[in-house]
Amino acid sequence: MPVLESITRLVQICARKAVTEFIISPGSRSAPLTISLARHPDMQTRVVPDERSAAFLALGMALKSRQTVGLVCTSGTAVLNYGPAIAEAYYQQVPLLILTADRPSEWLEQQDGQTLNQREVFGKHVKASYELPADFSHPDAIWFIERTVNEAINLSQSYPQGPVHINVPIREPFYPKADEQITFPEQVKIVRSWNTTQVLSPEQWVEIREIWEDSPRKLIVAGQSLYQPELIHVLKQIQQELQIPVVGDILSNLHEIPETIRLADAILMQKDEPLRKELAPDLLITFGNSVISKNLKLFLRQANLRVHWHIQPAGKVADPFQTLTDTIATQPLHFFRKLFEDIDYQSFLNEDEVENNDDYFQLWQQQEQQARLRLKNTFTDAPFSEFEAVYEIMSALPESGLLHVANSMPIRYANFVGINHWQSIEFFANRGTSGIDGCTGTALGSALVTHQLVTLITGDMAFLYDRNSLWHNRIPPNLRIIVLNNHGGGIFRLIDGPSTQPELEDYFETHQHQTAENTAKDFGIPYFRCHTMDELKGITSDFFAMDGTAKLLEIETDRKLNETIWKKFKKG
Amino acid sequence: MPVLESITRLVQICARKAVTEFIISPGSRSAPLTISLARHPDMQTRVVPDERSAAFLALGMALKSRQTVGLVCTSGTAVLNYGPAIAEAYYQQVPLLILTADRPSEWLEQQDGQTLNQREVFGKHVKASYELPADFSHPDAIWFIERTVNEAINLSQSYPQGPVHINVPIREPFYPKADEQITFPEQVKIVRSWNTTQVLSPEQWVEIREIWEDSPRKLIVAGQSLYQPELIHVLKQIQQELQIPVVGDILSNLHEIPETIRLADAILMQKDEPLRKELAPDLLITFGNSVISKNLKLFLRQANLRVHWHIQPAGKVADPFQTLTDTIATQPLHFFRKLFEDIDYQSFLNEDEVENNDDYFQLWQQQEQQARLRLKNTFTDAPFSEFEAVYEIMSALPESGLLHVANSMPIRYANFVGINHWQSIEFFANRGTSGIDGCTGTALGSALVTHQLVTLITGDMAFLYDRNSLWHNRIPPNLRIIVLNNHGGGIFRLIDGPSTQPELEDYFETHQHQTAENTAKDFGIPYFRCHTMDELKGITSDFFAMDGTAKLLEIETDRKLNETIWKKFKKG
Repeated sequence: MPVLESITRLVQICARKAVTEFIISPGSRSAPLTISLARHPDMQTRVVPDERSAAFLALGMALKSRQTVGLVCTSGTAVLNYGPAIAEAYYQQVPLLILTADRPSEWLEQQDGQTLNQREVFGKHVKASYELPADFSHPDAIWFIERTVNEAINLSQSYPQGPVHINVPIREPFYPKADEQITFPEQVKIVRSWNTTQVLSPEQWVEIREIWEDSPRKLIVAGQSLYQPELIHVLKQIQQELQIPVVGDILSNLHEIPETIRLADAILMQKDEPLRKELAPDLLITFGNSVISKNLKLFLRQANLRVHWHIQPAGKVADPFQTLTDTIATQPLHFFRKLFEDIDYQSFLNEDEVENNDDYFQLWQQQEQQARLRLKNTFTDAPFSEFEAVYEIMSALPESGLLHVANSMPIRYANFVGINHWQSIEFFANRGTSGIDGCTGTALGSALVTHQLVTLITGDMAFLYDRNSLWHNRIPPNLRIIVLNNHGGGIFRLIDGPSTQPELEDYFETHQHQTAENTAKDFGIPYFRCHTMDELKGITSDFFAMDGTAKLLEIETDRKLNETIWKKFKKG
Repeated sequence: MPVLESITRLVQICARKAVTEFIISPGSRSAPLTISLARHPDMQTRVVPDERSAAFLALGMALKSRQTVGLVCTSGTAVLNYGPAIAEAYYQQVPLLILTADRPSEWLEQQDGQTLNQREVFGKHVKASYELPADFSHPDAIWFIERTVNEAINLSQSYPQGPVHINVPIREPFYPKADEQITFPEQVKIVRSWNTTQVLSPEQWVEIREIWEDSPRKLIVAGQSLYQPELIHVLKQIQQELQIPVVGDILSNLHEIPETIRLADAILMQKDEPLRKELAPDLLITFGNSVISKNLKLFLRQANLRVHWHIQPAGKVADPFQTLTDTIATQPLHFFRKLFEDIDYQSFLNEDEVENNDDYFQLWQQQEQQARLRLKNTFTDAPFSEFEAVYEIMSALPESGLLHVANSMPIRYANFVGINHWQSIEFFANRGTSGIDGCTGTALGSALVTHQLVTLITGDMAFLYDRNSLWHNRIPPNLRIIVLNNHGGGIFRLIDGPSTQPELEDYFETHQHQTAENTAKDFGIPYFRCHTMDELKGITSDFFAMDGTAKLLEIETDRKLNETIWKKFKKG
């Protein structure tokens, strides 16, 4: 028997439905998938040995390309190594098509090598899990296979996007004969899925407008979202013309709007109760996924909101501020556009509310400016710290490109600094599950599908944890990795609680003596190192120059100085 | 509130039930577990940052110590990184107690950091998954917690041993006050679990003896088993006095019996049909887990057995040879002891069967000797290859100690070579799921709980895949790592199928240029390298010397020469 018809059909359907980027990990059981993908003229395939990394690479590719990216691995624990990235993709809503080769089910639990329970193995962290038949002599089986592949791809792309799993039992032989050609069937079943806009009725808009007008202080809070120029445009209008404050942390990708409140975390770390009362809204409108700031969460939980609208087209709705009153099932872009058109701001220009809202808007703006000043002052007459390094790097970033920031301290630093509005930067972070396990892989994946510069800011623990993600024969030349090395899990010294425990150094920080240099050598990446602000400033332009090679910059800092600067900042 | 009473009770019960070895990964949600374990006087704790490695270390510890080993990690993808080692532990039947910190369930899907669906997250690859209550003001909750911890530990240790998961939702605060003492309750509930021997009735023994006497050719095949001197003793008697051949590959840990057939894989790769008929038994007795040899499996499937007894105390029984007729629910040691006592071999010394059986036994012995000769001849006048390197290393191993061998080619080589009967070596390999993902971690884990020398033979792909398992502040000085570096996944060149495909080098072998040197540097491990047999012979005594430090030896070979030698061996 030649390479299995079920496989060539599956591959052909993927190609026709524009799922053409695959990350493959080596294996024998998966050979029919690998060989079919490698020989299909429309497929772009890449080989990554460590499946944990492979899946994070795919995640990073899909984040940037916004296409479903495919994964192929062999049977056994290979599959389980996908687990962390798949959970991240599920919570960050990123479309992946996971194809896991398997033994036919009669061989389960028969002490055969690389065999385990692969059905539903990703539990609740995939949108669906399918299993293809191992035998397909009956025409219904072919219909089932074709239907399933269509359904899986469509499902990965429908809101909320996410990972979908197809388990593929394969019988021997796995390899075509030495000179055998593989042909792909011309005729395969294609089911298109039409995405639509969900609209509210005129009566619903009347009610929305009434609540809007009844709410003196309105606040929009954006959660994690991909970069969307059209959404930026309308939210800019809402801020500038309606004077509605929009809190958008670094995850929101709204930094191109000058008025966006970037530093809510710094503003709300102040314990000033009267100020917090003034900042509290009557009407809260939210959209997107998670926010970083615990201070923002606590503030909103205590804010005595009257109404909280969450805008989300479908799916389970989270209530992270414990304030939710309404879920509105439509796309944020559509909602805000229509809202902006509907609000006849001329008509209430003379009313009290306008002034009220203007004051409220200005209060947030003032607070933002003060927070920025406090941030800047933190570094005045202060020794070099990783916090200042992030501050410097963020402003030294080239004007356009992608920025990935790793968990757990780097993302906090980066969020306190914020991205400037003149920087055209797409921002990414693994905040679906906030793990440190695949931050390098995700950034590298993004760099594979763009020619833009992709910068990753990471810590030593996240970098070392995920060093295998650099184990890949073609490191993209547009990748820049910055490692903040404080030789341990610095966050545990900076947050309350662990810093006062005798276990701090051994059990939480877990000191380590490594640098990234040997890893850079192993993977042939030019390596830069610095210890001072002057060295850092002297390096950035060379480091960011696009000259045909990936680069790695390690910034070594002292964890006790980092702690001092952090405390200075928190004191204000 | 001080550190949670639920946690101090849990830790105290573990201590009382002799679960005192824990591998902890850093995290904040898990801090109450970490701190309680660190401060309990009976606990031995170790910190490992990468959870994938942490779990493999625990597996290796439990394999050697034969005690339940505990794992502690924080919430989120940390948990999923345990997945591969847990599946291996499940199929290799190794007792682990997995404690995963979690948010209380009301925070699920609320966009909180490091939160995912942890209930039942290991699916079918744990013996059970429990969840403790987040609140325990009601006394029934304390009873539930104490009962559950007892049950989980007992379950991990009952046949078949395996991993058990307790999900532990924990509310803030996670840390005790700066100078707070932690006290452990003196009175905790302890439930002991009594292991018993399962015996057959006299009538059943009569039937067994009848079948035994009716079966001219009897063959015992041992699957993967831990080293058991008592079992070795009785199987030695059965071989030497009853002249029953025992096929025990390297996984069986029966090599101390001189007559054990080690090279069944090499014997049965011969296509000589009359010989295969002569070697086929009438009665097959099996015990233990998997065997390595595909040739042995195919031989037994075609052997037209009359009876196949599988000896296993409980649980699902696999039928890897498709020959199973009887499952006998007792311990192999008990079964073989009683069998040996019962078979009155004096009484049938003059009968035909004895002669028959003697001939059959001798045939296997002859074949074993011929296979050993073929093996030796393979290396005569042949260039240096990784196969010969393994041959040399296996005989240069110190007389006692532990040997771990990685998937996927090293274990095949090692099995073809076999361990000599005068070498007192406990053998280990991750053959539950046969992954390459944690072979280093498993060996390192074993080395943590013994003062004996622990040698790992691994390949470049398995070594690089699992390099993070060396990321641990105290590399045990009794660890020796030997990396067979052919700069790619050599197995794909050696097995049929992929070697004739145009995708061989890019998609299967996946060439890589790294050596283990930088990794050894990163972890401060003295590094040796060799390329020839003379170099190897010159190094081994220094390398194996117990002089207070772990060591790494890299043997670089040419993949095309490896292929030539492999083919020479297979031709005979």
